[in-house]
Amino acid sequence: MKHLNTQQADFWPQLKTLLAFETAQDPQIDATVAAICADVQQRGDAALIEYTNRFDGMAAQSMAELTLSQTDLQQAFHRLPETVQAALQTAAKRIETYHRHQKQESWSYRDADGTLLGQQITALDRVGIYVPGGKAAYPSSVMMNAMPAHVAGVGEIIMVVPTPKGERNDIVLAAAYVAGVTQVFTVGGAQAVAALAYGTDTIGQVDKITGPGNAYVAAAKRRVFGVVGIDMVAGPSEILVIADGSTPPEWVAMDLFSQAEHDEIAQAILIATDEGYLKSVQAAMQRLIAEMPRRAIIEASLHNRGAMILARDLDEACAIANFIAPEHLELSINNAAAWADKIRHAGAIFMGPYTSESLGDYCAGPNHVLPTSRTARFASPLGVYDFQKRSSLIEVSAAGAHSLGQIASVLAHGEGLTAHARAAEMRLQAKA
Amino acid sequence: MKHLNTQQADFWPQLKTLLAFETAQDPQIDATVAAICADVQQRGDAALIEYTNRFDGMAAQSMAELTLSQTDLQQAFHRLPETVQAALQTAAKRIETYHRHQKQESWSYRDADGTLLGQQITALDRVGIYVPGGKAAYPSSVMMNAMPAHVAGVGEIIMVVPTPKGERNDIVLAAAYVAGVTQVFTVGGAQAVAALAYGTDTIGQVDKITGPGNAYVAAAKRRVFGVVGIDMVAGPSEILVIADGSTPPEWVAMDLFSQAEHDEIAQAILIATDEGYLKSVQAAMQRLIAEMPRRAIIEASLHNRGAMILARDLDEACAIANFIAPEHLELSINNAAAWADKIRHAGAIFMGPYTSESLGDYCAGPNHVLPTSRTARFASPLGVYDFQKRSSLIEVSAAGAHSLGQIASVLAHGEGLTAHARAAEMRLQAKA
Repeated sequence: MKHLNTQQADFWPQLKTLLAFETAQDPQIDATVAAICADVQQRGDAALIEYTNRFDGMAAQSMAELTLSQTDLQQAFHRLPETVQAALQTAAKRIETYHRHQKQESWSYRDADGTLLGQQITALDRVGIYVPGGKAAYPSSVMMNAMPAHVAGVGEIIMVVPTPKGERNDIVLAAAYVAGVTQVFTVGGAQAVAALAYGTDTIGQVDKITGPGNAYVAAAKRRVFGVVGIDMVAGPSEILVIADGSTPPEWVAMDLFSQAEHDEIAQAILIATDEGYLKSVQAAMQRLIAEMPRRAIIEASLHNRGAMILARDLDEACAIANFIAPEHLELSINNAAAWADKIRHAGAIFMGPYTSESLGDYCAGPNHVLPTSRTARFASPLGVYDFQKRSSLIEVSAAGAHSLGQIASVLAHGEGLTAHARAAEMRLQAKA
Repeated sequence: MKHLNTQQADFWPQLKTLLAFETAQDPQIDATVAAICADVQQRGDAALIEYTNRFDGMAAQSMAELTLSQTDLQQAFHRLPETVQAALQTAAKRIETYHRHQKQESWSYRDADGTLLGQQITALDRVGIYVPGGKAAYPSSVMMNAMPAHVAGVGEIIMVVPTPKGERNDIVLAAAYVAGVTQVFTVGGAQAVAALAYGTDTIGQVDKITGPGNAYVAAAKRRVFGVVGIDMVAGPSEILVIADGSTPPEWVAMDLFSQAEHDEIAQAILIATDEGYLKSVQAAMQRLIAEMPRRAIIEASLHNRGAMILARDLDEACAIANFIAPEHLELSINNAAAWADKIRHAGAIFMGPYTSESLGDYCAGPNHVLPTSRTARFASPLGVYDFQKRSSLIEVSAAGAHSLGQIASVLAHGEGLTAHARAAEMRLQAKA
């Protein structure tokens, strides 16, 4: 891990270098994805089946073989050990409870002249959830994507998940069951994204696609954006821990590991105000690393992108956090809630010694799909609000048309838009 | 205008053809924009001044010559006739009142075991508003983009507006004054977008860029998306009017004109249930067209993309509206509010005979930046929520860590993420 000190003259340039991450898109992947998307748009199910057979080692003859029903999901759930069933259900319940707080309701008000103004808030009709297959099979990701759509009241939640060589993952399908997914298709890659975006005879066109995927999936999502909505295309996962020394060093060490174990480009940074504490965490990491099955990934991640930063005080640490705008921020400090008021940019703020990021990843309630790569400056966690949209409501009364029409007329003439002005002026006659 | 009838066998294919609009990006524009963005990112103000001099016919030596202060904006306001000043102020006040209803507040709750969960909602630090210069100078656009940011509590609202050959537009600058813009730079094009996205010595890096622009501006916004947030890249403007025959045909005719006068690719569609009414509107259009200074644009727009549709009944008309998901929907019908309940997808719903779209464009209160090209299926009007973002808040109690830790441990082991599991398990000891 790199060691930085805010008192070094070149601290800020060093920090910027540490955070820099090139997300350039690969033109060859883009070209491949463009061809697949065009083909699926044109030939629908036939193209989808061909690509699925080719890329996922399948031999499907029809979409029926690539379709799972509610019963299939239910059966997957019941095949799991009871402890896992219970964990999924409790997590789903907590995630649902939290997300219900995000649901927005239509509103309106009337002016004194009777004019009504407001917003009608409705759920999306149909959404697609992309779930990666193979070894990186994450039931928590299914729940975190599907549950906000479910709480929003989305009519149909379509999940796609590739099953390379036909291998289905019971815990992923069980998560779909508890999270209220309507239907699952065992397809993946750019072809699955295209099928959701344009629709086929079997798969209805969706209004939005969310969920993580590889470079092909990300490129396909970028390509269909505009035809459908998409969530953010995520960068590498990150954690920033600010510690005042009051949390056991082993706990902080394991929190850094839990970020680093995601992949070699994940980023784990610790800021403390006491050099002795940084050394204790480092010593704890050295003791604990041997227990880690994903040791090689953790070591690569910490070596490539990890850092320990010695700051003057907690105010300076918060200023650094606001610059980094981290996906995950742990305030492992006394009176953390008061310090959280100083944080302007972070995907999620984990406060106090007991709040490990992993509790938030699975079951605390908040969403684990969070803005990465400094985008917390302007973006938010995935939420119910991503599956609702708004229509402005305006009903102008006769008296309202009289007063508003005069203003609109002046401004429309100012913009040289005569028809706009005349449309307003025609309604002036109608004074109540 | 085309004439469609829902009883024709090929009605839906015809409707789809009518709505189709190719938004392919021009690779040559993309390449030019990529070079400009890279240059501004690298050389900052120097590059920005060079491009501004070259593309806008200016001869600026320094950024000071391209910077307007609050005093400049105030002076522009005071040079306007009093009726225009008053119209701007009344419109701004109404827009502000409406948008205050959209402002979201932080929330949190506690579990029985003391665990705190919530969301901290904050404004963006600094945003950029792009305003086109030249002939298409729209003060209403300044207000509709800046006011939601102002109501959200954004710290700095930076506006960029090109001033070709140095020509400044007082009403645009006055609109910036009443809408709470912090500072104005008289630059435009891809170079202005790049300066906002990356920051220069003079222009602070913003967190989000909104506002309309030409193909170069749109390409630049797409390019910097991810570095900063952007609003939707808008397609051609559209109106769908559903009329039951109770509104004077002249009013509806002028509403169709007011959409068509925007440009040749704008789309105006009328649905009615009575053929005689469609004919009356057509006759009114023939009478009124002579009065229109933008007659050529209106005629081209209506010829290319306009349509009159005869529907069986209002239920069918609403079903068509939900398919089209129009930017602007006028329900020019009796008891319009009841019918609005059947509308699932529309940017804005204008109800009743007095509610011309133009009242909404300028001063009713709701935003006139609306989702186009069927994106109202998943997108919303520009609003205060576009200038706020959320951070999840989690503070787990000792007791909470005990109960949640067991669930997280089961699920983390299920995903093969041992460090995640261990981080949760370490906190189990700490049972309160």
